[in-house]
Amino acid sequence: MSDLKYKILAMVKNDLADIEVSLKQNLNSYLDLVSQIAGHILFSGGKRLRPLLMILSARICNYKGSYDKTFSTIFEYLHTATLLHDDLVDGATLRRGKPVAHSIYGNSTAVLVGDFLLARSLSIAAETGRPEVIKTIANITQQMSQGEIHQLARIGESDLSEEEYMEIIRRKTAVLFHGACRSGALIADAPKEKEEAVSDYGFNLGIAFQMADDLLDYTSKTMVLGKEIGADLREGKLTLPVIYSLKEASPEDQIVMKKIIKSKDLSAYDFEMLIELLRKYGGLAYTEKLSAEYVKKAKDAISIFDPSKTKEILLNIADYALVRKV
Amino acid sequence: MSDLKYKILAMVKNDLADIEVSLKQNLNSYLDLVSQIAGHILFSGGKRLRPLLMILSARICNYKGSYDKTFSTIFEYLHTATLLHDDLVDGATLRRGKPVAHSIYGNSTAVLVGDFLLARSLSIAAETGRPEVIKTIANITQQMSQGEIHQLARIGESDLSEEEYMEIIRRKTAVLFHGACRSGALIADAPKEKEEAVSDYGFNLGIAFQMADDLLDYTSKTMVLGKEIGADLREGKLTLPVIYSLKEASPEDQIVMKKIIKSKDLSAYDFEMLIELLRKYGGLAYTEKLSAEYVKKAKDAISIFDPSKTKEILLNIADYALVRKV
Repeated sequence: MSDLKYKILAMVKNDLADIEVSLKQNLNSYLDLVSQIAGHILFSGGKRLRPLLMILSARICNYKGSYDKTFSTIFEYLHTATLLHDDLVDGATLRRGKPVAHSIYGNSTAVLVGDFLLARSLSIAAETGRPEVIKTIANITQQMSQGEIHQLARIGESDLSEEEYMEIIRRKTAVLFHGACRSGALIADAPKEKEEAVSDYGFNLGIAFQMADDLLDYTSKTMVLGKEIGADLREGKLTLPVIYSLKEASPEDQIVMKKIIKSKDLSAYDFEMLIELLRKYGGLAYTEKLSAEYVKKAKDAISIFDPSKTKEILLNIADYALVRKV
Repeated sequence: MSDLKYKILAMVKNDLADIEVSLKQNLNSYLDLVSQIAGHILFSGGKRLRPLLMILSARICNYKGSYDKTFSTIFEYLHTATLLHDDLVDGATLRRGKPVAHSIYGNSTAVLVGDFLLARSLSIAAETGRPEVIKTIANITQQMSQGEIHQLARIGESDLSEEEYMEIIRRKTAVLFHGACRSGALIADAPKEKEEAVSDYGFNLGIAFQMADDLLDYTSKTMVLGKEIGADLREGKLTLPVIYSLKEASPEDQIVMKKIIKSKDLSAYDFEMLIELLRKYGGLAYTEKLSAEYVKKAKDAISIFDPSKTKEILLNIADYALVRKV
């Protein structure tokens, strides 16, 4: 575990403990099966990053109420719902080092429990009685499903542009980070300036996290990432390291890369060769550099806030996006 | 087409035309693929019963605004989202006489387009800015997913009781009918008494419709129902005609029935024999009788309203639940 991760965890220990309790308390299904299956993925070592961001955003905007912990579960339930549906969509086999839910409980149950978590999120949002908050949550789910559909529609194609990649990760990842932070400001009744500051922080952090995630898919070790290395490529998903390298590659190497990308049965040798080409044409370095730029944008966005422990945590989380191994 | 259906269609012609336009206008996806796939199932001859019930409920409560058509799409989008996910769950092959969406576009796309329609429904609800309306919609989705999970958890089991069957159809069907009618009263700012009247109408109609649907699965012809006859049984779903007959059957016939129910590969002969036993032990007649009782409850619920064309349509729709062949 990196020093930075240890430092952050020490600073948010109580918040994380509260989030765990709330996640259990708010599941609210009359069916044991739902608690069991949702629990399989909900309580399998998620980082709780999204609920944490919501709580910290509310706190930096001087929120004084007690609804933040319950409210924060929305963002973990939403995230979990999309994991359940996406693992099914992607045909993934591992998530956080454990077999994915649909391989244990069946596709149908994974779909329906995902639906329940989606519905539960929106019910908790509705409980606030605040239309602006509810619109934000409803919009997140609308954007996320479209981002995933967009990605799916381009599966297996080798002509995805950087612009289209940005459009997809904006919807499928950044919108949820943005929404979590913005909702924190909204329930704190923050002035517009602060609401925009934490929203920008969340948006840029989301982009940086997704880029770092896409990078890890080529650089991580299976045991650390808890899912299979090279999974994106196997699923036919083009991400920034490949998109950039393809654009920069010589015509000969483009042919080699496209052949690897399109191959149905990726060998370890092919994968190593692709990584070599990603290094040669700078796709890994470019993704790392761009991710760092978004981290900087995220940190700059909250410069309007006075120094505080909460601000320090938010800054540390942004830095963590770059150094994390998981 | 029965006389009653013809009569109803003539009375709601303009409303149905408006609903079609709204369904197209409010889909609002930036992706052509979403419009195309959602369109495959959305515009394949659905009855538009749920949006129609919402519009009629608003009208009988003296709604004078112009948001009802847009608002009514919520109930068709929600219904369509559950069809997309349920066809996948059930492994169905036909819906309204056409191949189901997931067999054409793939499971993944069917899941994600269903998610989009669910999210779209909640966004349209959020646009009203009315917490009570939004809570109703969020609750519908929560109940429906649990009803489906409950049903799924009991798939292939022959000991489902009538009480458990009622619990399942209440959640998976009646809650949406109830919610559509109640939301109509809510946007019309109807007094509590009228809100409850149309809500009760919707709830009882929903139960009656589902029972009639479950009956049709044993009595309809494929061409008329637009899905395969005996589909419920093939999917391992026990419905009221079977539940009741099983309870009434002699020990010997119980053994025969259970064997048919559990058989993986249902022959035409087995199916005919089962129908024979459902007749012999009164499961078909009992389901028909109970469905008629719920239709009566639905009609009684709106007795507080003065005579009007709208009331007449609602009464006709209730009667139609019993005579429909589709």
